[in-house]
Amino acid sequence: MWTDGKTDMQDAGRKRASSTGRVIKSLMALNGDMAHLDKYMQDKWFVLQLAVWALRGVTRVILANNPLSGAVMLLALYWASPWQGLLGTLGVLTATLVAVILGQDSAEVWGGLHGFNGMLVSLLMGAFNSAGDWYLWLMLPVCLGSATSVFFFSGLSPVLDRWDLPVAVFPFNMVIVLYFLCTGPDNPHFPHHLAVPPSSAPPNVTALSAAQVLQGIPLGVGQIFACGSLGPSLLILAGLCLYSPLQAVHALLGSAVGTLAGLSMSVRHECLYTGLSGFNGALGCMAVGGLFFTFSWRTHLLAIACAFLSAFVDIALSNLLGSIGLPACSWAATLSATLMLLLRGSLSTYRIPLARVKAPERNLCSRSRWEAGSTVERDSTDV
Amino acid sequence: MWTDGKTDMQDAGRKRASSTGRVIKSLMALNGDMAHLDKYMQDKWFVLQLAVWALRGVTRVILANNPLSGAVMLLALYWASPWQGLLGTLGVLTATLVAVILGQDSAEVWGGLHGFNGMLVSLLMGAFNSAGDWYLWLMLPVCLGSATSVFFFSGLSPVLDRWDLPVAVFPFNMVIVLYFLCTGPDNPHFPHHLAVPPSSAPPNVTALSAAQVLQGIPLGVGQIFACGSLGPSLLILAGLCLYSPLQAVHALLGSAVGTLAGLSMSVRHECLYTGLSGFNGALGCMAVGGLFFTFSWRTHLLAIACAFLSAFVDIALSNLLGSIGLPACSWAATLSATLMLLLRGSLSTYRIPLARVKAPERNLCSRSRWEAGSTVERDSTDV
Amino acid sequence: MWTDGKTDMQDAGRKRASSTGRVIKSLMALNGDMAHLDKYMQDKWFVLQLAVWALRGVTRVILANNPLSGAVMLLALYWASPWQGLLGTLGVLTATLVAVILGQDSAEVWGGLHGFNGMLVSLLMGAFNSAGDWYLWLMLPVCLGSATSVFFFSGLSPVLDRWDLPVAVFPFNMVIVLYFLCTGPDNPHFPHHLAVPPSSAPPNVTALSAAQVLQGIPLGVGQIFACGSLGPSLLILAGLCLYSPLQAVHALLGSAVGTLAGLSMSVRHECLYTGLSGFNGALGCMAVGGLFFTFSWRTHLLAIACAFLSAFVDIALSNLLGSIGLPACSWAATLSATLMLLLRGSLSTYRIPLARVKAPERNLCSRSRWEAGSTVERDSTDV
Repeated sequence: MWTDGKTDMQDAGRKRASSTGRVIKSLMALNGDMAHLDKYMQDKWFVLQLAVWALRGVTRVILANNPLSGAVMLLALYWASPWQGLLGTLGVLTATLVAVILGQDSAEVWGGLHGFNGMLVSLLMGAFNSAGDWYLWLMLPVCLGSATSVFFFSGLSPVLDRWDLPVAVFPFNMVIVLYFLCTGPDNPHFPHHLAVPPSSAPPNVTALSAAQVLQGIPLGVGQIFACGSLGPSLLILAGLCLYSPLQAVHALLGSAVGTLAGLSMSVRHECLYTGLSGFNGALGCMAVGGLFFTFSWRTHLLAIACAFLSAFVDIALSNLLGSIGLPACSWAATLSATLMLLLRGSLSTYRIPLARVKAPERNLCSRSRWEAGSTVERDSTDV
Repeated sequence: MWTDGKTDMQDAGRKRASSTGRVIKSLMALNGDMAHLDKYMQDKWFVLQLAVWALRGVTRVILANNPLSGAVMLLALYWASPWQGLLGTLGVLTATLVAVILGQDSAEVWGGLHGFNGMLVSLLMGAFNSAGDWYLWLMLPVCLGSATSVFFFSGLSPVLDRWDLPVAVFPFNMVIVLYFLCTGPDNPHFPHHLAVPPSSAPPNVTALSAAQVLQGIPLGVGQIFACGSLGPSLLILAGLCLYSPLQAVHALLGSAVGTLAGLSMSVRHECLYTGLSGFNGALGCMAVGGLFFTFSWRTHLLAIACAFLSAFVDIALSNLLGSIGLPACSWAATLSATLMLLLRGSLSTYRIPLARVKAPERNLCSRSRWEAGSTVERDSTDV
Repeated sequence: MWTDGKTDMQDAGRKRASSTGRVIKSLMALNGDMAHLDKYMQDKWFVLQLAVWALRGVTRVILANNPLSGAVMLLALYWASPWQGLLGTLGVLTATLVAVILGQDSAEVWGGLHGFNGMLVSLLMGAFNSAGDWYLWLMLPVCLGSATSVFFFSGLSPVLDRWDLPVAVFPFNMVIVLYFLCTGPDNPHFPHHLAVPPSSAPPNVTALSAAQVLQGIPLGVGQIFACGSLGPSLLILAGLCLYSPLQAVHALLGSAVGTLAGLSMSVRHECLYTGLSGFNGALGCMAVGGLFFTFSWRTHLLAIACAFLSAFVDIALSNLLGSIGLPACSWAATLSATLMLLLRGSLSTYRIPLARVKAPERNLCSRSRWEAGSTVERDSTDV
């Protein structure tokens, strides 16, 4: 792109163009998957490497993969609650270390694939803990739960690989449900709040506040990290934007769709206001819109459909699990996105093989390239 | 069969025989799978084609595949309740259209495989709706639910294909459970009745009426379409008989077995009288007896075993799901038949590969043919 | 081993050595899998063969495979309760016979693989039956349940085979849950006790008795056979020791780990005292430590991890299923061990392919042999 114009430009223009290009290139090097960083980090200290893997793991929670975004999101978590930030950091580090010890595939460890489930387990343990912040004993189940999530990840992958499906957040959802079931609400060491089903009585008597519902949409993005404050949620969204603006748009769109679904089923106002109605929609929308499918108007419609499905399934599962006090976590989005990835028919031609999934914007470019049969795999930052 | 006797028959006898043969042939052309119709319909209007696909879809509900039977069964549904008939029609048409739009495999669409789950979703939504008949808003979830069933069908098929298993009514069962969980009993827009577990208190105090129990057996066939009136149930049975008499016999046998299982577990009398005890047995019995297995005395015994298993599993699941107010639908029969299809050992030699499954009577003929290694696939109506 | 020293030993010493060797060999012929017995039994009466298959089936319950151990364990069951012993015998015989009738793979039938699920179903039906001992009608569901477990075993194996996973006690767990759900607590013919969740109120007020907790550890091994008496439990352990001392050590270790997990979650004292907290840990520990993985210090640690996971998952599932009165049986250990068998990474190199699994001690020897590429498969008793 930058070399085509070489011959018919003047020297000065060329210099200017090339310097602008260099700036854009450096900016582009910071968004997307930052795959070039892996090469650069190969001979660095283990602690530095671990930090990068963990930061990638932080972004994997929200279907991104960029250590810089990860730093931004971690900052947002510490801003929202230093205790939650600490637990999340502990979880992602423990899980990544356990994966290294268990000798998991190094490409997976480098990509942060083993850390994000541990992080989510830790964040949810902290969010539902009823013993108050800075209850240090909680670090014990946080470490154990994060470590367990690595076993689940490693065990589920050969099963899901058969259909080229990602393991996604299945391990997190399983481990956290088992943890809540195991401890129960009255556990003397690790008590936790009970989740309330979204359709539960008493019925909504107060009028719905449109402003608060609108505020629930960005909060839905934050709720992916179990974070319910507006400022940190917006910072998380900014971090996501750094990885891929398309992904950020889909996150907001999905959260809006989820809120709409919640409105249609007249769930408790609290669910709408806190963004709990929206986050499954956001996850479902992001997974289909651009990440695992090449972006086009057809997959865009599919992403909206997936967001609706995720949101309605979330209400259904929240009612089911809520009746025994369990949160539905992100079961709905995970199951819905998995279903979409399994779809046959003309839409499956847009599906990107798991090994080739990159940031949505790169997917668009790389797809045309590998579809054209180009066997030369150029550096993905060299667009 | 009709051509073997050619040389040693007189002219007159030949003519008579051939005219009788023609009549039998035309009659035979109306039962079974009517595969010849597909060729005939290829260049007709889309609306006509859609009608045939939808009518095939109607019969798929009861494991048949014949547009004429479908018309008879739809008539029975309109007879039982015009509102239910309308919902069923809407469901099967929506699902088939969505499958066309999603670019699903045309052979599957032509065979009505995408319509029947949508139809069942619509019928159950109507049957459990507590807002009364002709509550037109119900058409919205009916359309959405039917469309969702296509996604589930398409998504489940690559998973089940690995073991050459049919998707069957898994999509219907999943969608309807999610719908009931999502709306809940007190939903302001789409309220629905709660299902009552079959073994629930108070215990049966009144004497059991043998006549009503016997009446429950044909009603069990009607309950496959969520239809609880005797006349329409018999008409549905007649439609099934048009497709395959063997299938109709197995349906009644299975329903009787299911009723017997219900008696042995002393379920509520209402379950026996309305045929709710029998319909899972009927489905299980039909699937194994002749359809997915070649008919023989061994598979006949297996069909009875499958009917018993379906019926007992149905009581178990109805007790489980009924405790939170959900109906067990046809989970039991679907799971039991799937288990039977997975069986190893000497019985698995009777198993018909999914791609070769036809009407039970044709299965008997075609099996001997493809087992004999005949590579020429003759027209299946030309027996 | 015994032939290497031949040339440099005196005649007398050789005789002594060879006679000692013969004794050791005969002893060794009695432990492990006793594979040589199959050849010996081939032309014997069917009733004798059936007895051997059934006795192997008895040991399969506790992950062993030795008819002598089976006889010892059956003796222990009759000692604990003749009625339970009778039910167990009936269950294992019915299941094995049904497998023969259904034409299941003869190697599987010979190895007792079809009997043990039936035995467990029978034992649990007896243990939870509230109509008292020697309620002969119970034999009807015992026979039917055992027969059903064969169907489940045969149907699940093609699914689990894809990942080289054992069917294990999945059939037992499914059948028994269905049975309890089907009959319900108030069934007029087959009433049964309700299971109580381990974390249920009222909280533990009495002090914990260390002696009783310690006694719970060997009881945990007995609870694998639903046997809660100390003497028979120790006899079962002795029988296990006959098969493989390593397995027996892992059983005790796992039971201790399970008790520890129960203590950490402060479950009801009764669960600790009766060994109910320990038996899932014991099963999980045995499966990983030596049986499906070659024994080494790394797999030993994995076995302890699996025991902890099994125990905690058991508490979680017991709380979940206990809320509707169902026991969690051995779901936890089965799922945890399955997860461990699916693990990727460096630990998976210790995994023994299912077709090569023998007694833990032989696994150690045979592994080095088949890894060394020795194509000559010598008789496994000829160490």
